[in-house]
Amino acid sequence: MQERVLLAHGSGGKLSHDLVERLLVPIFNNPLLEKLDDSASFPASGRLAFTTDSYIVTPIFFPGGDIGRLAVCGTVNDLSMVGARPLYLSVSLIVEEGLPIAELERVARSMQEAAEEAGVTVITGDTKVVNHGSADRLFVNTAGIGKVPEGVDISGSNARPGDAVIVSGPLGDHGIAVMSQREGLSFAAGVESDVAPLNHLVQAMLRASGRIHALRDPTRGGLASTLNEIARQSQVGIRIDEELVPVRDAVRAACEMLGLDPLYVANEGKLVAMLPEEDAEPVVRAMRKERHGSAAAIIGRVCAEEPGRVVMRTRLGTSRIVDMLTGEPLPRIC
Amino acid sequence: MQERVLLAHGSGGKLSHDLVERLLVPIFNNPLLEKLDDSASFPASGRLAFTTDSYIVTPIFFPGGDIGRLAVCGTVNDLSMVGARPLYLSVSLIVEEGLPIAELERVARSMQEAAEEAGVTVITGDTKVVNHGSADRLFVNTAGIGKVPEGVDISGSNARPGDAVIVSGPLGDHGIAVMSQREGLSFAAGVESDVAPLNHLVQAMLRASGRIHALRDPTRGGLASTLNEIARQSQVGIRIDEELVPVRDAVRAACEMLGLDPLYVANEGKLVAMLPEEDAEPVVRAMRKERHGSAAAIIGRVCAEEPGRVVMRTRLGTSRIVDMLTGEPLPRIC
Repeated sequence: MQERVLLAHGSGGKLSHDLVERLLVPIFNNPLLEKLDDSASFPASGRLAFTTDSYIVTPIFFPGGDIGRLAVCGTVNDLSMVGARPLYLSVSLIVEEGLPIAELERVARSMQEAAEEAGVTVITGDTKVVNHGSADRLFVNTAGIGKVPEGVDISGSNARPGDAVIVSGPLGDHGIAVMSQREGLSFAAGVESDVAPLNHLVQAMLRASGRIHALRDPTRGGLASTLNEIARQSQVGIRIDEELVPVRDAVRAACEMLGLDPLYVANEGKLVAMLPEEDAEPVVRAMRKERHGSAAAIIGRVCAEEPGRVVMRTRLGTSRIVDMLTGEPLPRIC
Repeated sequence: MQERVLLAHGSGGKLSHDLVERLLVPIFNNPLLEKLDDSASFPASGRLAFTTDSYIVTPIFFPGGDIGRLAVCGTVNDLSMVGARPLYLSVSLIVEEGLPIAELERVARSMQEAAEEAGVTVITGDTKVVNHGSADRLFVNTAGIGKVPEGVDISGSNARPGDAVIVSGPLGDHGIAVMSQREGLSFAAGVESDVAPLNHLVQAMLRASGRIHALRDPTRGGLASTLNEIARQSQVGIRIDEELVPVRDAVRAACEMLGLDPLYVANEGKLVAMLPEEDAEPVVRAMRKERHGSAAAIIGRVCAEEPGRVVMRTRLGTSRIVDMLTGEPLPRIC
């Protein structure tokens, strides 16, 4: 095979077939994909969830992950945030001419590893190549299909006054890890992306409580934007306590140096949950037994006052409004 | 709203929400999308088909269509090529900073029009923005879910010796239309892309015959590459007759000027079908009653000899091997 991706790898002709059949299909190795028809097919029943995301992170390899792992985990997590068990993924690659084939292979292997970790199967895909300078190395799209268990109705619109607000672990790791790699920031050395599939964590939470109202992964825009979304969708107020919001020291230090607020920095392996206060302790206990929820914490509550607004009690004991992100301090973080 | 797309439109913050809630969601207007959760959900049963494609065509507006119509039709058609009725689409946009919002809106409206034409619903989506120079204006990914009717088993692996080979209309329109726009070729003036959803045509074919073995839309790589794919997948030989392959005069003339073979030029509203010879005439009659099959024609047959090989009887009465496309004469055509 060639050393670098050529335009002809996207032609639909011989080199396209070589790339797909000799490199990609063997990595994602499964009988549904191997049929190589225009669509894959599978038997279905009940309620299904469907989602998509494109990934444009730069650089494509960063501490703790890469664009491939990100693309699989991001879509697995979007399915998980409605309580669905992720089943099938599609993978679509937009490659800049000249990308080393070895890097494409590394990304694809990383996708398959993440898919195995989550227990999902890549059953259909597409590869396009654009001329040098028309894209930045590699963009990845994944779409996903999951099964929503019977009786589960989780939505950003379902948070209710009296719910506890839970986060699954420390905030801001992903954004700072990508930023540090991009800018060569020595003070952020050692911070790794939290990118991880959260479906097993969510299933454990569902076993601990049948009353989870809202789930969301605070990616772009961070926890602050996610809480604002839910406050608006559910028409509730949200109160959080800065003291209770977990942030690693290294991330906090990096944020201070960069003038960033960790509440606005992207996460790729964290979730926020709203559920009745009575169920909060058992759910947090169940989360802490899971690899990706070991530092889960209750950080606040949902209230009826000031619907649509998120308010934080600061370390100083004062209150401040936490608004949705404005501007874009960290572009191309996912 | 701003005049142009800013990086902050991809931040996950306020401008992202504005773009999604004030521009995109109202265009794709439907209750499943409007929930704005991380995944959309829907009830399912039976066998489903799943597919994805990214679209990188340049320019994004071309005679007869645009990247939005292409992205909807392409995925609708990939679902149709396994006999599925397309139901739901995801739409994921990668936008270059600086793209006029009016162009984004025009593309989104075109997607919705094509979706209505096909009878599919856009239920989930994503928008990313990359800095100026990191992508070429706009890339669009669509993934799609369709329902495979009971008893339908259509695959590129199912062509059988004795099958007729049918195409739904003249070849090469899409590739030549995009090329003419890109290069300002006056001799190709008047050629329009054939980009169209083929699901209604396929449903009409399924009503006319219960024995359709293989369907495929000859996009990138053209009819030649598609026939080679099927010949390899089904381990059959394919014989076509140049005289019977429909090509518009303007397309043929443009191909001659450009040194292209219309057999290798992309189509976006055509299909090739393999089915038992006895059913070929009724299927062609049914196709000709449909808007996107009015020039359907039998162009050859499937045989047991020379499995994996496509041979064409030329206008001169000689035979030549029709190989898969090599190289990439028309990059970024879809």
